[in-house]
Amino acid sequence: MASSILSRRLASSLRPSPGLSASGYRHQQTIAKRVEEVEFDGPCMKTEVPGPRSKILAQQLEGIQSVNRMLDVYTQTASIPIGYNHPALTKVMTDPKNMGTFVNRPALGMMPPEQFFEKLVNGLMAVAPKGFSWVQTMACGSCSNENAYKAIFIWYRNKMRGTSEPTPEEVRTSVINQVPGCPDLTLLSFMGGFHGRTLGCLATTHTKAIQKLDMPSFDWPIAPFPQLRYPLDTFKRENAQEEAHCLEEAEDLIVKWNQKGRHVAGVVIEPIQAEGGDNHASFDFYRKLRGITKHGCAFLVDEVQTGGGSTGKIWAHEHWGLDDPADIVSFSKKMLTGGYYQKDGFQTDMPFRIFNMWLGDHTKNLLLTEVIKVIKTENLLDQAKRSGKVMLEGLYNLQVIPPPLPLSRARGIGTFCAIDVKVEDTCNNLILKARNKGVVLGGCGTQSIRFRPALVFTEHHAHLFLDIFNDAIAELK
Amino acid sequence: MASSILSRRLASSLRPSPGLSASGYRHQQTIAKRVEEVEFDGPCMKTEVPGPRSKILAQQLEGIQSVNRMLDVYTQTASIPIGYNHPALTKVMTDPKNMGTFVNRPALGMMPPEQFFEKLVNGLMAVAPKGFSWVQTMACGSCSNENAYKAIFIWYRNKMRGTSEPTPEEVRTSVINQVPGCPDLTLLSFMGGFHGRTLGCLATTHTKAIQKLDMPSFDWPIAPFPQLRYPLDTFKRENAQEEAHCLEEAEDLIVKWNQKGRHVAGVVIEPIQAEGGDNHASFDFYRKLRGITKHGCAFLVDEVQTGGGSTGKIWAHEHWGLDDPADIVSFSKKMLTGGYYQKDGFQTDMPFRIFNMWLGDHTKNLLLTEVIKVIKTENLLDQAKRSGKVMLEGLYNLQVIPPPLPLSRARGIGTFCAIDVKVEDTCNNLILKARNKGVVLGGCGTQSIRFRPALVFTEHHAHLFLDIFNDAIAELK
Repeated sequence: MASSILSRRLASSLRPSPGLSASGYRHQQTIAKRVEEVEFDGPCMKTEVPGPRSKILAQQLEGIQSVNRMLDVYTQTASIPIGYNHPALTKVMTDPKNMGTFVNRPALGMMPPEQFFEKLVNGLMAVAPKGFSWVQTMACGSCSNENAYKAIFIWYRNKMRGTSEPTPEEVRTSVINQVPGCPDLTLLSFMGGFHGRTLGCLATTHTKAIQKLDMPSFDWPIAPFPQLRYPLDTFKRENAQEEAHCLEEAEDLIVKWNQKGRHVAGVVIEPIQAEGGDNHASFDFYRKLRGITKHGCAFLVDEVQTGGGSTGKIWAHEHWGLDDPADIVSFSKKMLTGGYYQKDGFQTDMPFRIFNMWLGDHTKNLLLTEVIKVIKTENLLDQAKRSGKVMLEGLYNLQVIPPPLPLSRARGIGTFCAIDVKVEDTCNNLILKARNKGVVLGGCGTQSIRFRPALVFTEHHAHLFLDIFNDAIAELK
Repeated sequence: MASSILSRRLASSLRPSPGLSASGYRHQQTIAKRVEEVEFDGPCMKTEVPGPRSKILAQQLEGIQSVNRMLDVYTQTASIPIGYNHPALTKVMTDPKNMGTFVNRPALGMMPPEQFFEKLVNGLMAVAPKGFSWVQTMACGSCSNENAYKAIFIWYRNKMRGTSEPTPEEVRTSVINQVPGCPDLTLLSFMGGFHGRTLGCLATTHTKAIQKLDMPSFDWPIAPFPQLRYPLDTFKRENAQEEAHCLEEAEDLIVKWNQKGRHVAGVVIEPIQAEGGDNHASFDFYRKLRGITKHGCAFLVDEVQTGGGSTGKIWAHEHWGLDDPADIVSFSKKMLTGGYYQKDGFQTDMPFRIFNMWLGDHTKNLLLTEVIKVIKTENLLDQAKRSGKVMLEGLYNLQVIPPPLPLSRARGIGTFCAIDVKVEDTCNNLILKARNKGVVLGGCGTQSIRFRPALVFTEHHAHLFLDIFNDAIAELK
């Protein structure tokens, strides 16, 4: 099979290839077409991308605009849950009883609209991770993490002082940014982690310099994230060593920073480091990390990019099988609204401690409730598992065939997949080539391509994608 | 007149009052009813607030819900620009060509939709303050300020190092939160100022302890904000002294912090301190403060609450008559989208330095474009001036008549008005009394009531409000 892919790769991908295999997918001859009804029968490119109209718009916006029909394997950075123009969502828009919510944006903390409770119950709470009975909505991923951090700091200080009642000195000093009112608490984050770009989040983000350069920050502890070899199962022993080393370092940091009085109130981590380069760790690593947080710090799982179903579960961290659930799980993107779940004890003790004017956008809750329904009725989590299997197998194949281009480290859970391209420029070139062939991809880290299709991405789409990705690679060799 | 108001106040406001003056407004006999068509003929209360249905919803949500017809003089904390259910906005929602934007939220920094440029030109840029040719959208007020701060830090560091090209040492250290990559720059803010609740913004917010308690913060300089006597014109001389003192202190802080190497990159201030208690300063104070920023720091005017027209100008700071415009003006609330205007030199020098996934919500730009049109065609800025005049005169009257309740410090520009109630509990009680009479109000500071009607609030509504406010006060005496 490897050589058959290679030979096809050598053919110019822009010319029609009449001699395809029986399955109709060129990248793999053995698979039978299993999708009965195919609404989307492949990209249909009429111009280069950006096209002429886009060039005019791009001139105005210095941006880009897609006007061809394309297969989107990036979906606005993983933020379109069930594809574009899903009828369930257009129905929300045309329902007259939703009109008021869209034109009169309510301040959810003060004037929650009538449907608010119902939509939270049938939306966010219907997919709450096990162990979570509280949810707080926010407008975006950064605000979600900023406020999750605040919830952790409040919880930690209440624990330290043994009461939620501050001293007069704390009250006085808090307003002027001084201790003890504004204590010198810290959060432990990981190298390569990304948690947002507002100043609080940014202090826990350690991806690219361009995101942090020139910004005042907090001096907080940063642990190494395991640098593993893929596939994880093949390199179990050496990966376990690397993980043990990182866990040891993380625990050391917590102990040392606690000792010097700069207490580590929480640990924040992604189930897969996404912006940082789709870096995975074993489920065992995360279970052990949860154990380490028993030094008294909260455990915050940032599911902004991993949440919403693409790993085959709504929450990627559900794969870990934690005995003791995390304390806070933050989300945004595919969930349409930002926010976080929190365990008993993390909800605020007094009104207005965690607060802002809008506290999210209720129109997103209306849409999300329908998204959740569609995910369930259309079995989209199973779909993601099946499509992901096709994708990952296809990616494995790409990196073992004689290389016209060195591809490596194929990895993924569900459709949340990635592959590395040796040289950064080549990686960017490959993304551009694929785009001109009608496939939208995105990069991450310095030389990874990440795949972030919507949940309606079927095995058929996965095969289409692999065909075109093959062709794009062939052009680069 | 004063006694006639008092006598009416003494009458029970819940019984009908047949003997009204010729104008139809009880709070003032001399004014003629000038509104030809009155769509809204006063509140119509059938139950206490919250009503029975609301109590059920409130039990579920531990929140509140309004089901009566009410006169909203708070408008979701000043965030409903042209009233509820304005036909211009419902039209946006029912226009099929807008459907895609509502159900497929675009990542504006990467995939700006076709109408993006046009909507920015006819929306935000159509009302840009003089001197501003750049605008950046964001999702909310906090994100707007966080990113405005970042723009300032980038600008300041580029100025310091004489190039936008960082050293390898800066690149290396920035990722791990250390100097020189993450420099020890500061922002000067004012006591009583409110700029948001994410950790960066929170370091410049100095209102209530409850908002800041237990949160790690930045040690940045804080200047006193003038504590003035109202009406400003009546106490010109002593107010000028207070302002001179505050300006001196602000300048001292900048000089001293620059000297000790903790450079003040910017000064951030509201045109009227809103959350902090509707604290005004003279236009002259702001002009002089702008002069002080010539010590090399950027001047950021936070118009999140003051922007959008209620002062009789789209931007409150346009009242100041600055010779040299501010450097950055941030907004949200009534503008429906968050964001900020910036002067040449503050736009980012490299892509992705100021960035997040959504960069606002284009549906808000669609709505805002219509809001701007309505403001212009319906002359709503003039409307705000006229209604504001009625309101402020009514408030002045309330505080000079023999007091059943000590009211003081009536103040305002346009409809952006406030008044103080001596005791905090009484202030909250008055807000509740008014609510049960069908008028929604909000507090600010510790003992102020702020008035934040929409721009469609007419003189007629102002009179209705004053009548009911009178009645509520009468019940408290």
